[in-house]
Amino acid sequence: MSLASNFVDATLCCALKVIRALHEELNLFEEKGIGFGGDRSLNIDLIAEKIFIKKLSEFGNILSEEAGFIDNGKDKKIVIDPIDGSYNVSNNIPYFGCSVYFEDTASVVVNLSNGDYFVKDDKGKRFDNLFRKPFHANFRHDVILFEKAYQNPDMVAKLAKHSLKFRAPGALSLSLSYGEASKAVIYKGEIREFDIAAAKFYNSDCHWHFEEDLIVMSPKKEYLEEVLSIIKE
Amino acid sequence: MSLASNFVDATLCCALKVIRALHEELNLFEEKGIGFGGDRSLNIDLIAEKIFIKKLSEFGNILSEEAGFIDNGKDKKIVIDPIDGSYNVSNNIPYFGCSVYFEDTASVVVNLSNGDYFVKDDKGKRFDNLFRKPFHANFRHDVILFEKAYQNPDMVAKLAKHSLKFRAPGALSLSLSYGEASKAVIYKGEIREFDIAAAKFYNSDCHWHFEEDLIVMSPKKEYLEEVLSIIKE
Repeated sequence: MSLASNFVDATLCCALKVIRALHEELNLFEEKGIGFGGDRSLNIDLIAEKIFIKKLSEFGNILSEEAGFIDNGKDKKIVIDPIDGSYNVSNNIPYFGCSVYFEDTASVVVNLSNGDYFVKDDKGKRFDNLFRKPFHANFRHDVILFEKAYQNPDMVAKLAKHSLKFRAPGALSLSLSYGEASKAVIYKGEIREFDIAAAKFYNSDCHWHFEEDLIVMSPKKEYLEEVLSIIKE
Repeated sequence: MSLASNFVDATLCCALKVIRALHEELNLFEEKGIGFGGDRSLNIDLIAEKIFIKKLSEFGNILSEEAGFIDNGKDKKIVIDPIDGSYNVSNNIPYFGCSVYFEDTASVVVNLSNGDYFVKDDKGKRFDNLFRKPFHANFRHDVILFEKAYQNPDMVAKLAKHSLKFRAPGALSLSLSYGEASKAVIYKGEIREFDIAAAKFYNSDCHWHFEEDLIVMSPKKEYLEEVLSIIKE
């Protein structure tokens, strides 16, 4: 097996352990202070991070949302968001995941609520599921995923004016991954490496627009341009 | 077994068949005209409806989103939304379900993406999962589920002013069910029986506010009042 596929295997194994922890550990949602990334850390964030750090440290140095940078004396960096969507999981909203990027080598994003996962390694990209046959079809690309809609009422108003439907599900790495089947993904807010590194690597064949505090991504160039022209009005 | 629990069993069995159809049928997302409820019907909507009608007709007359009213010469009515969140499933957004209400007797809402289900019958209400141990914890009640946010920019602006976080996941019956673990659920738009009957029965112990085109629901009275006072500003 290649290094990349060893890494993917190790990461998926971590994701399974995190899912098990979600079902078995106690006091999952106790607050444990503020993490390196600036958000509140819950008990489950720290439990999940420990699982990833233990198993992935042999592959590289680690930059993780809660702990920050861990120098393992390696050449390459691994960027980890152990739980993307902590607010969702702690409100029983079934859209939360983990996001892991191995510099220039591989990426893994897992929806911990249903087992869907997005992998890219030396064999290319694929959408699959940990537990069952993955769900594939010709998707319709007519809904936008808009992350941080709740902080951007002006942009909501512009999309409404053009009768564009959006969803605001609340976990950026998942939305940037699932976004290959949607019309576009919009994110307006502080851009942090943990949230986007893995999905950017996975969907490198999609069209991306980056500004200091804005990301728009779409599987089709004309959709990207349409959405950009509307939100820039 | 009681009539209610027979009905719940039959409905969960239908949900499993719909999940199987999602993975096996072809051309799931082909458009098939406009359903009785006024939305576009996709192939999967009709496939799912057929599964429910076949199995549930022995229990009552049926009011279903695609087909409308079916008189089976029974005393009680069954209200069915075969696929709530058709736009989600057809954009690979993992938040879609089915919603079934058996008049005054039982309700079943299933998240077809991950197997979570919400049941109420003569034994009371319960949250469980079709495939695994259900995920339980002390939820934090600090996120709002806001359905049809994309059509209501003014309300988004009011919530933003008060720094309230919301998610807009896009399947009303699911949100009104999961909402027992959130701060509140807001829905602003046309109210249709298919979308709300089952969740209203399931969460009858929560606090509800109804207007002609507005629903606010919360597990706690003070949250309901807080959210109402903000969106009425």
